[in-house]
Amino acid sequence: MIERPRGTRDLDPDEMETRRKIEQNLRDLSTSFGYREILTPTFEHTELFTKKSGPDIVNELYHFEDKGGRDIALRPEFTASVIRAYNEGMRELPKPLKLFYFGPSFRYERPQSGRYREFWQFGTELIGPDTARADAENIALAYNCVKNIRLDEFELRVSNLKILDQFLQENDIDIEKRQDIYHKIDKEELEEVSEEYSLGSKLLDFLNMELDEMSNILKDPEPVEYLKEVLDLLEYYGLDEKHLKVDIGTVRGLDYYKGVVFEIDADNLGAEKQILGGGDYNLGDIFGIDISSKGFAMGFDRSILALENEGKLPELDEMDCYIIPIGEESFEYSYEILRELRSKNVITDIDLMGRGVGKALGYADKNDFKYALLVGGNEVEDKSVTIKDMHSGDQKTIGKDEFVREVDEKWN
Amino acid sequence: MIERPRGTRDLDPDEMETRRKIEQNLRDLSTSFGYREILTPTFEHTELFTKKSGPDIVNELYHFEDKGGRDIALRPEFTASVIRAYNEGMRELPKPLKLFYFGPSFRYERPQSGRYREFWQFGTELIGPDTARADAENIALAYNCVKNIRLDEFELRVSNLKILDQFLQENDIDIEKRQDIYHKIDKEELEEVSEEYSLGSKLLDFLNMELDEMSNILKDPEPVEYLKEVLDLLEYYGLDEKHLKVDIGTVRGLDYYKGVVFEIDADNLGAEKQILGGGDYNLGDIFGIDISSKGFAMGFDRSILALENEGKLPELDEMDCYIIPIGEESFEYSYEILRELRSKNVITDIDLMGRGVGKALGYADKNDFKYALLVGGNEVEDKSVTIKDMHSGDQKTIGKDEFVREVDEKWN
Repeated sequence: MIERPRGTRDLDPDEMETRRKIEQNLRDLSTSFGYREILTPTFEHTELFTKKSGPDIVNELYHFEDKGGRDIALRPEFTASVIRAYNEGMRELPKPLKLFYFGPSFRYERPQSGRYREFWQFGTELIGPDTARADAENIALAYNCVKNIRLDEFELRVSNLKILDQFLQENDIDIEKRQDIYHKIDKEELEEVSEEYSLGSKLLDFLNMELDEMSNILKDPEPVEYLKEVLDLLEYYGLDEKHLKVDIGTVRGLDYYKGVVFEIDADNLGAEKQILGGGDYNLGDIFGIDISSKGFAMGFDRSILALENEGKLPELDEMDCYIIPIGEESFEYSYEILRELRSKNVITDIDLMGRGVGKALGYADKNDFKYALLVGGNEVEDKSVTIKDMHSGDQKTIGKDEFVREVDEKWN
Repeated sequence: MIERPRGTRDLDPDEMETRRKIEQNLRDLSTSFGYREILTPTFEHTELFTKKSGPDIVNELYHFEDKGGRDIALRPEFTASVIRAYNEGMRELPKPLKLFYFGPSFRYERPQSGRYREFWQFGTELIGPDTARADAENIALAYNCVKNIRLDEFELRVSNLKILDQFLQENDIDIEKRQDIYHKIDKEELEEVSEEYSLGSKLLDFLNMELDEMSNILKDPEPVEYLKEVLDLLEYYGLDEKHLKVDIGTVRGLDYYKGVVFEIDADNLGAEKQILGGGDYNLGDIFGIDISSKGFAMGFDRSILALENEGKLPELDEMDCYIIPIGEESFEYSYEILRELRSKNVITDIDLMGRGVGKALGYADKNDFKYALLVGGNEVEDKSVTIKDMHSGDQKTIGKDEFVREVDEKWN
């Protein structure tokens, strides 16, 4: 028996309806922010991803040699592809250039609960401006994405990598060691890194300070002041303080981040609770140009899991009308009703199997139709339709035009 | 320089907006027909596709061994995957089961104009009923898909494979040779196949007959009568006769088709003019069960090309409002306007780079904004906003609440 590949999913009609509603929500929101959608190929030259994330990434990639001898990989994320596409064909577009994307990404890893080998990402890139206003716009959209899909229990952690950079420099630590130290902060191996770099309790103390204290301690407090400017702007955007936490220990794991960074955790997801991450980065090195960009990526599957845990999934639509023609002589008239309703975007189906009324009503019930429309000889003669309300069981006969008008007014 | 892989595309914001509008159109239409969306993984076990289409298909597949030693292929189309998913997890759903899908498929072949290695398909499956009504529903949806996206010059060719099967049987030709003969009809090698099977002019004459003539000639005219029943139903569905052609030479290339089949050609596409194909098939053999299904697949990229040739691509939306704060003291108020407009789904952006008014207006113009909103000290004081109409150049100052109300009423 041929089954679906390990670690992948078939998304059934209920799941797809839920996902499309949440996707539409994110799409409308990003559009209202002036972002526009782009799409890159599902696969890229493997080199694009190793240049972005280092050679070890190949261990997690679906990659292979194509029939032309190219080393090709299914994308593990979109950012590298978007910047590649920008460099290849969109450099002439006016800046700021605001882009969003939505689609599947792939990684070969051990499948676990909520982690799939094909998973979906929604994300954005804001290419061009290197200002506090652009950082705030980026964070405000990320916050609103989570808020707009109706997630309630989440925390947005914000930092500026340049604050820690400044702290390390002022403590005579070679900036080249930055990633090593950040990596350990990420894993909360603070004692180990403090010992290794002879920082005593300095690092831990610094991480626990308020921004004003940091400003006082640093010889050059500019990075702290920059973050404060971003936070002031976020107040103008109406971000609710209860979701917001300044956390200088939020460092993202990757070398191309350079300034303000942030992550969003969903409280109900346990150990793997991060649903969104982003910040200020520069991937220009890969292409030999300077491309400042601010963006984020949202894990679509994990966000849906968090919503589900909060009981906040959007409701599924009911089907509207199921037409049951009784006898061949009512066919033509039944199809006339079918056409009229469908032309008004009323979800309408018709018995295709010539079932008896009882069985046909059973099908309408199992498929969540609001109304069954019974159409026999009398209805043909009167140009009427007999409507059975599938919830209440009530039944009445009314003129066809009246019914179509009613439905159109009520639902459109 | 790392570029996109050969034969693939980056879809820019204008292209994506066009594509999403057409996709939404197809989605709404299929939903009104009672179809619901499903999605299968981007890759499958290669065996699924070789069992469906024969071993030669691997020459056109992107396939590879994954890290677990499985032979995996990017899907070349959706039907095999949908039936696999149905068999694996949806067999209990009530029949008829009406499904649609939309997504990318992949084939390794020489890239040509309008043919890409990653291409997009929209399609449907109607699983369960084996009736003329179901065939008609399937064809009616296919027709309306093409009609609804506003393509004007197209031809829908309809046939019933059982008519030719009957003709071959009555001419003492082994039904096992069916695919060989159909393959040649497809390629219009009619003389060759007529000679090979000693049919003289019989085959060519038969293909040119009206349905009533065929009915008279065949000993068992049932397949002709069935097709006539489907055509009568299509009249009830309101299909325009000018687009419809009965063509018994429409045979589809594949063994699993068994009854009514059809194709749609876009007149303006030249040699590669087919944009949709489908019919009545049974893929149950692969899974050892009986699954009658009627469906079609529409080439999304080629359909868009046909629309473009007819000058019928949907219009792109304009951006709505671009806010230009003049001086830091107008920031807070500017962001208040930004939030209010965005919360009403008005596409609103704000200068993120601190540009002067002239440059900022230039950006608003290049990005197709309808209005630029100038916000300086006076506007902050009066709770007003100065609006520049980017088309006419007219400028006026009105109360902020009045403007928001106006915009909300006009655009929502």
